[in-house]
Amino acid sequence: MSEMNAPGAGHQNSLGDEIVGRINRLAAISETPEHLARVFLTREHRAAADLIQSWMVEAGMHAHLDAIGNVCGRYEGDRPGLPCLMLGSHYDTVRDAGRWDGPLGLITAICCVADLHKRARRLPFAIEVTGFADEEGVRFASTLLGSRAVAGTFVESALGAKDAAGISMRDALVQFGLDPDHIGAAARARSELLAYVELHIEQGPVLEGLNLPVGVVTAIAGATRLAASLTGMAGHAGTVPMLLRRDALAGAAECIVAIEEFCRTDEGGLVGTVGYIHAMPGATNVIPGQVSFTIDIRAPSDAHRKLAVTDIVREIEAIAKRRKLVLQLDVTHENRTVPCAPWLRSQVAEAIAAEGFRVFELPSGAGHDGMAMIDIADVGMLFVRCRGGISHHPDEHVEAADVDAGARVLLRLIESFRPPAP
Amino acid sequence: MSEMNAPGAGHQNSLGDEIVGRINRLAAISETPEHLARVFLTREHRAAADLIQSWMVEAGMHAHLDAIGNVCGRYEGDRPGLPCLMLGSHYDTVRDAGRWDGPLGLITAICCVADLHKRARRLPFAIEVTGFADEEGVRFASTLLGSRAVAGTFVESALGAKDAAGISMRDALVQFGLDPDHIGAAARARSELLAYVELHIEQGPVLEGLNLPVGVVTAIAGATRLAASLTGMAGHAGTVPMLLRRDALAGAAECIVAIEEFCRTDEGGLVGTVGYIHAMPGATNVIPGQVSFTIDIRAPSDAHRKLAVTDIVREIEAIAKRRKLVLQLDVTHENRTVPCAPWLRSQVAEAIAAEGFRVFELPSGAGHDGMAMIDIADVGMLFVRCRGGISHHPDEHVEAADVDAGARVLLRLIESFRPPAP
Repeated sequence: MSEMNAPGAGHQNSLGDEIVGRINRLAAISETPEHLARVFLTREHRAAADLIQSWMVEAGMHAHLDAIGNVCGRYEGDRPGLPCLMLGSHYDTVRDAGRWDGPLGLITAICCVADLHKRARRLPFAIEVTGFADEEGVRFASTLLGSRAVAGTFVESALGAKDAAGISMRDALVQFGLDPDHIGAAARARSELLAYVELHIEQGPVLEGLNLPVGVVTAIAGATRLAASLTGMAGHAGTVPMLLRRDALAGAAECIVAIEEFCRTDEGGLVGTVGYIHAMPGATNVIPGQVSFTIDIRAPSDAHRKLAVTDIVREIEAIAKRRKLVLQLDVTHENRTVPCAPWLRSQVAEAIAAEGFRVFELPSGAGHDGMAMIDIADVGMLFVRCRGGISHHPDEHVEAADVDAGARVLLRLIESFRPPAP
Repeated sequence: MSEMNAPGAGHQNSLGDEIVGRINRLAAISETPEHLARVFLTREHRAAADLIQSWMVEAGMHAHLDAIGNVCGRYEGDRPGLPCLMLGSHYDTVRDAGRWDGPLGLITAICCVADLHKRARRLPFAIEVTGFADEEGVRFASTLLGSRAVAGTFVESALGAKDAAGISMRDALVQFGLDPDHIGAAARARSELLAYVELHIEQGPVLEGLNLPVGVVTAIAGATRLAASLTGMAGHAGTVPMLLRRDALAGAAECIVAIEEFCRTDEGGLVGTVGYIHAMPGATNVIPGQVSFTIDIRAPSDAHRKLAVTDIVREIEAIAKRRKLVLQLDVTHENRTVPCAPWLRSQVAEAIAAEGFRVFELPSGAGHDGMAMIDIADVGMLFVRCRGGISHHPDEHVEAADVDAGARVLLRLIESFRPPAP
């Protein structure tokens, strides 16, 4: 909060200070004061929407809530009704969240528009800023609800989903003051959008490692998640000789090492993670008879990821076969890669260079609203460095100087934005 | 139960049939009828003790309960008061147990004595059979309570231990009808025992693999148990490149593979097991920041085991260092190896050969009452094959023919038993 209370806070001399102040104000709107949580369609979610809407109005925008709870602001161009450059990010959070994931992109966009408004600057296109209502998917275990509604890909049946307390999404929308039967009206037409551009914290350590405040995103990596189970034979840790064992955990360990090695030696940005493992029966003196674990594989292109998944599955099958373990392997989740449009990448890169920073391109391993927006617009993304690559954690942090750098790049991008030739 | 109900069951023509019948009768004495459980100092434990005592008396022995609940039977030699060959095993069980682990050795010993008694055969030494009250340690998390009392190594402070219901061992002994202040009286002097010999199911698959009904035990393997914890850095499964990761689970997996490989390539019967693992935070899309796991190392000699533990610890330390993981490694349990006395191994081997079986020697990876009895007597052990090496499970099974083979070997051992020259 130091930026807000600093002497001269009334006369911020940078966009960064203003943004950090608003980040902190928004972070105070939480389920509990100790742990930041702002879950879809809760009371605090509504309070946050109201605050964001007020900021949009202050910034010279018309603003309203759409039928899914997205906060939608529009700053007209040099004449009314022009197609828009849409900026945005989400205002919901995970539980025990950091304050930057989502709000940084949304607030930076609002502050950029406010800056244009202050200068009475109008552009040959409209600017819209969308605060997406649900990207994290904490409440109904279904992500990107806000951007899917805008993209027209919201699935009606999702309204029947229930939260942990048994409340349906339909009822939660009504309680929030929305009409679940009009979600279709939140959808936008491709002809209304020139592009969708999002600024977001990196949520990884790459920019920090390179000492760069910002980076151009090449693509939002697709992901394949698998659930694996290996079944061998449980046995007494003392009485079964090594050569007679069918140890499911030793087999899983060999798979984990193989997955890591396969991804580590890949030069195309492939990442593979085993995040969950469970060995049964799980006693110190019993050879594990069954082990289940998850595999998460991501790559900047679908072809690369699919090839990697095929190779990794083949390796796991070979390990299971050699160890006489029964393998069960299921794909539980699959997301296509969303490439950022080359013409938008170029313009983001130009804005970065114009602000005096080195241009560096990197893929996004995390998912973002662009994954839904791609269905109605070309997508561009700008990453801002975050400390230690830490995200989804109270320690998530962005330096004020980097906030300012991101805002200056976004503002420059907006002011020099050129839609592609039709 | 087929052996009991078979035609002619009244005229068993083998020791094996008689023993299997009694195994089944004893297995009916359980906490619940569905899952065999006979825990130290419970009502069913008492009922089992009474049945065993009645069998001892039928077999021509004087029998009594000692102060810890051991059932102690004595069959005098060709004159009263001679030192004894002590036979025995335990009559407590784990929960959801098999019926053979413990009772087979105890009942076989009683039936051998019954056979001598029927033939009015007296030997130049006494025979004692002890049904140890607690070997498994289920109730008070402290094993070998029965045999430690006999060996004079029962630790008084154990009486204060409480079970899951908060009942102290002292109170449980009183409820059972015993005097906790007289446990010292259960202790036997070294001069009273010529040897301690136990027949037990193998609880492993070695004899089955060799198609042998019985085997000579060389030693009860010592064990070292360690608790390991590796701490790296949690992170987003999509955003942290492979080369910047400090993945605690990938590190643990490399350790598990290394432990297995180290033990697999050892030619001296070393076994190593990781039975428990826990990865935190344990989410599909999060790189594990911390992993804890257990290591259980056993070998037929202490020197071998200690050397192996040192080498394995060194390997784990090297893996942790190379991966920049913080390692915490603690020894949580250590049991010395109990070698079987060479002169007893010879006599067991002779008895096996005389019964027409091939002599095969193997270590016991599981613990047994001999681990306590070694403090007052030389120890010998005879293993009987069990199906699939399965133990501590309702599927634990011994074929009647193998029960008979074990009984014939034990009977021959008894009848040809020669104490070592003083």
